[in-house]
Amino acid sequence: MSEDLVIIPKATLSRLPLYLRVLNELKHINMRFISSDEMAARLGITSSQLRKDLSYFGGLGIRGTGYDVEYLLGRIKDILGISRHWRMAVIGAGKLGTALARYPGLGQHGITVAALFDVDESKVGWKAGDVPIFHLSELPAKKEELNLEIVTLTIPAQVAQKVCDLALQAGFKAIWNFAPVRLDVPGDVLVQYEDLVVGVLTLSHLLSRRLG
Amino acid sequence: MSEDLVIIPKATLSRLPLYLRVLNELKHINMRFISSDEMAARLGITSSQLRKDLSYFGGLGIRGTGYDVEYLLGRIKDILGISRHWRMAVIGAGKLGTALARYPGLGQHGITVAALFDVDESKVGWKAGDVPIFHLSELPAKKEELNLEIVTLTIPAQVAQKVCDLALQAGFKAIWNFAPVRLDVPGDVLVQYEDLVVGVLTLSHLLSRRLG
Repeated sequence: MSEDLVIIPKATLSRLPLYLRVLNELKHINMRFISSDEMAARLGITSSQLRKDLSYFGGLGIRGTGYDVEYLLGRIKDILGISRHWRMAVIGAGKLGTALARYPGLGQHGITVAALFDVDESKVGWKAGDVPIFHLSELPAKKEELNLEIVTLTIPAQVAQKVCDLALQAGFKAIWNFAPVRLDVPGDVLVQYEDLVVGVLTLSHLLSRRLG
Repeated sequence: MSEDLVIIPKATLSRLPLYLRVLNELKHINMRFISSDEMAARLGITSSQLRKDLSYFGGLGIRGTGYDVEYLLGRIKDILGISRHWRMAVIGAGKLGTALARYPGLGQHGITVAALFDVDESKVGWKAGDVPIFHLSELPAKKEELNLEIVTLTIPAQVAQKVCDLALQAGFKAIWNFAPVRLDVPGDVLVQYEDLVVGVLTLSHLLSRRLG
């Protein structure tokens, strides 16, 4: 089977950042091999779950020796697309946008927030951490100049489609959307929706069931 | 089947906030009934998907009339646990914590951020929006005084378990965790994990596949 055809289940994908973190720690202490039992214990999951996840990307443990830490690390980075680096634009230099610009988790996974954009003139020209804030009208020019490939929307729902259209015109093909609204995009554009409310509603749903 | 036994699939649950928004809009324009086709079109999903979702909570359309807007609204609010209100503590008065404190999406879904906590003395005594910032040592007292039931952690991974333990000692049974680490909690405590990196890694995974 061609590697391009491997579709990794979302649940597995969601655990990869955690695997990456643990494997980086192991590499850091010069550990070359690890058993599935020991790695599963560090992750707080079952070893059968771990083995199943790793099987999706050809990670085969060697009997009596375990998994090759360096090899697994390389494979997971390939799968996550972080062997290559991505440069990201964030539109909306509010609390969430500037929090993302400063968030170390992105850089650790090969993603650099290279520019923030806003329509608020009082923000334009300033920086959030090391990240410069440009006017939204500069998006097409900065996309080329700074080689931006992913655009993140941290803007109100009412303006999201309009701003999304500007990003599409500028040539973006990958959108990370925090605005609580579905976006209308062509079929060749990737959109990842992030609705912070969903998580806490799941929690309140379970809590109200619990408390009756 | 007892209502308590209805387990709603996570994918369905993730769409409920969207349904809630659309139904609220319909109610606002005094629309009493809506067909599944029309509602699905507004949501950007298929009507068979919508009917399947609604079937989980006994939302039965009437042939030729459609779904009762008011009834569906009530049912979804019940399921999401937002017929009742929840008061939330946020530990970590950084960018993300203060963004959550000001985030209108929470209030719209029945969740009030009533207090922020931090160990940084320069933040204690100030407010983020309308939300007062207390010292972390005040957590147990404020939990009782302000009737806090959900605690949100927006703190670094290294201190997450320690702060989680403090929250457990204070009596919290529901944790919304943004720290990128698994928490060790007793079986009767609910934890909802929120890893912002997972979404963007899914995106970079797909983008690197696309670009080859």
